[in-house]
Amino acid sequence: MANVKPSIPKGTRDFTPTEMVRRNYILNTIRSIFEKYAYLPIETPSIENLSTLMGKYGEEGDRLIFKILNSGDFLANVDLGNKTAQQLTPLICEKGLRYDLTVPFARFIVQHQNELIFPFKRYQMQPVWRADRPQKGRYREFYQCDIDVIGSNSMLNEAELIKITDEVFNAFKLDTVIKVNNRKILSGIAEIISEPDKITTICTAIDKLDKIGREGVLNELKDNGLTDSSINKLMPFFDFSGTNEQKLDFLEKMFINSEIGRKGIDELRSMLSYVDALTISTPVEIEFTLARGLNYYTGAIFEVKCKQVAMGSVAGGGRYDDLTSIFGLKNMSGVGISYGAERIYDILLECDGFPTSLTTPIKVLFINFGKKEELYALQAVQQLRNANITCELYPDNVKIGKQLNYANNKAIPFVIMAGENEIKENCFTLKNMQTGEQKKVTITQLLEYKL
Amino acid sequence: MANVKPSIPKGTRDFTPTEMVRRNYILNTIRSIFEKYAYLPIETPSIENLSTLMGKYGEEGDRLIFKILNSGDFLANVDLGNKTAQQLTPLICEKGLRYDLTVPFARFIVQHQNELIFPFKRYQMQPVWRADRPQKGRYREFYQCDIDVIGSNSMLNEAELIKITDEVFNAFKLDTVIKVNNRKILSGIAEIISEPDKITTICTAIDKLDKIGREGVLNELKDNGLTDSSINKLMPFFDFSGTNEQKLDFLEKMFINSEIGRKGIDELRSMLSYVDALTISTPVEIEFTLARGLNYYTGAIFEVKCKQVAMGSVAGGGRYDDLTSIFGLKNMSGVGISYGAERIYDILLECDGFPTSLTTPIKVLFINFGKKEELYALQAVQQLRNANITCELYPDNVKIGKQLNYANNKAIPFVIMAGENEIKENCFTLKNMQTGEQKKVTITQLLEYKL
Repeated sequence: MANVKPSIPKGTRDFTPTEMVRRNYILNTIRSIFEKYAYLPIETPSIENLSTLMGKYGEEGDRLIFKILNSGDFLANVDLGNKTAQQLTPLICEKGLRYDLTVPFARFIVQHQNELIFPFKRYQMQPVWRADRPQKGRYREFYQCDIDVIGSNSMLNEAELIKITDEVFNAFKLDTVIKVNNRKILSGIAEIISEPDKITTICTAIDKLDKIGREGVLNELKDNGLTDSSINKLMPFFDFSGTNEQKLDFLEKMFINSEIGRKGIDELRSMLSYVDALTISTPVEIEFTLARGLNYYTGAIFEVKCKQVAMGSVAGGGRYDDLTSIFGLKNMSGVGISYGAERIYDILLECDGFPTSLTTPIKVLFINFGKKEELYALQAVQQLRNANITCELYPDNVKIGKQLNYANNKAIPFVIMAGENEIKENCFTLKNMQTGEQKKVTITQLLEYKL
Repeated sequence: MANVKPSIPKGTRDFTPTEMVRRNYILNTIRSIFEKYAYLPIETPSIENLSTLMGKYGEEGDRLIFKILNSGDFLANVDLGNKTAQQLTPLICEKGLRYDLTVPFARFIVQHQNELIFPFKRYQMQPVWRADRPQKGRYREFYQCDIDVIGSNSMLNEAELIKITDEVFNAFKLDTVIKVNNRKILSGIAEIISEPDKITTICTAIDKLDKIGREGVLNELKDNGLTDSSINKLMPFFDFSGTNEQKLDFLEKMFINSEIGRKGIDELRSMLSYVDALTISTPVEIEFTLARGLNYYTGAIFEVKCKQVAMGSVAGGGRYDDLTSIFGLKNMSGVGISYGAERIYDILLECDGFPTSLTTPIKVLFINFGKKEELYALQAVQQLRNANITCELYPDNVKIGKQLNYANNKAIPFVIMAGENEIKENCFTLKNMQTGEQKKVTITQLLEYKL
């Protein structure tokens, strides 16, 4: 075997125990809230058929899906001819890596529709893969945490998702604002500025407001064929500020001639009345320019921004009436929200937001003094473990300084020394690694000690 | 978007909530035991460089690694010429999916050697992928659960792994036997039958004893050039039966002229003396014919067989002195064991071994009687959730029969009805779905009720 200098692919990461403790804190916190709200877990394969994935994420998305080479003699029935890479790909690859959790979820719903009980409330926390150019905060393998309710039209679901979001970010002590909008409001806007067919263009452009600014958005709209008159009519929606109630009143006036726009107002009002009933501490703000570029949204749109850092959104979602129809199942309205675990990780790291209690689970290290002492220690080790106290016996009889270093480096708070004297007295010397304090204890005292 | 009949690739699986509850039970049980024994988690990327993976699992393994097509114009600098699929693969694929947890762990150790504290005790529970022909009990994506200690030569580690194994299978109430051997015993055998260079051949053949029987093994050995005289000398090792002590005594006699064989006896004795100190309830049996085919083992070898079903091994492992040297780091002895989560799942399912307490986490469904009642119910729902009781309000005001069906199908044990009367009396009607019993309770009573 050749000597290989070890490395991992760009955009992927190893997680050491310290990082895992933090990562698990995030995932477990989110999971426990999802479960409290009666969402149940599902998992889908990492590998999907390309026929499931392709054409669902736009051209850019198609390119960014990792494709898996067919096994065996993948060239057997392939005429290489003068094919480009793009032409060759579908001939030598049938499978790809999961790109998000939404499309596999839609596929899952359709495939298992007869086993599932609707409304179906599921959560899913799994990695996804994108052949994106790696950069700060953008990885090629990263976790998504999604919850969705499918098979119910009630606005109660939207409100519940907002309540869960409130609880999630409160748990992380992050200062967020939940921006809400409704795709029908955007349709109403397109309608009253006389550009009903340009709704996708408008959403795509508006979605970039944070990145390219207002000027940029207006230029993009102009470039995409919106007239100056339309753009002028669009301006008030950018400019209006006020409370949610004032915004809804403003919309009422603007949407006198837009039925879909008024439908959007009704949905927003209904959602917000449930939100009120759920006592949510995070501000929930209507934002007319929230579009999230995703064309499958048909109703509510959410986006959560963290105020502590300039990092964009930490969660987002919305209602989609027609997601499963791409797999042949119609009339299945759903609403969901996705939390960015990696971004939450980066923010908590940046603002020193991980709880100080996130330390090693190992409470005690038993020092190894040799054969006879080992066996004496081992009995106590097992008794502590039986009492569910995580502890370990240093496996080798090396210098005590090296063993104490091991405890220090691993931040193990207590060390137990049991040599000849302790065995004679049937006790243990317990050392607090923080204070340096030492005392002799019996096994019973040890088991009762607040380790 | 075209209508696609939804399916998933052969050998992969979706997991519904019912299956997830069982799966999580297995993974969480194993994890909590690993943690109690002070093993800490790490994770490595799903995608590794092919240079890390290839050549580590034999020719067959190389073939079974899923390869990922390079992104972008992967043909740019490739001369297609008259290449075979095998020749083309390394030119168009640089990355592959993780095939096991051992090689990525070795890569991780070498790459992070300066950040890690040795002896390093880690656990890792992640999926691996193999382009194997799918069949019953064999999947293309499946979880492995590995623990390893690296950087310590003490036999205490071997014993601890055996103790953990005992605890894991006791937790699942599975009746197992832990077979142990030592690679040095196998080397001793090869030596005294005068075939010291054929150790790999001998291990590979012996490893198939369960599958092809004794006759088959002997034939394979003959085919691979072992003389009749050697094979005759091998027979006593197949035939000997007795207690561990009797087996060790037998080996002492056989290995008078084999230094390595005697070293193997010493290691086995040392390991078993620790095992005795750890009070293990699962039988630990020496088996001279345990080889596990894996050539990187240099000391102890373990295999766990489940007696309840004829399914082969449910866990296996051993000591390897030289695993990290393939990545340039020498003198790092390690020992580990891997548990087959999927096989445990299949066995528990087959023998009806999942705890009956593995039911839905949802304790209560609140029936939806319409707008006004919804808001009344919602307050109670939130109070229960604040008390960490998982519950849900049916999101739509549909027929009560449909809502009760929903509760039944999801096996939710309690239903709460709160209509006009309950609102007037400021109470809730609680229905036990199992007994059918109904009673009126206040919110305080509800919170104190054993749901």
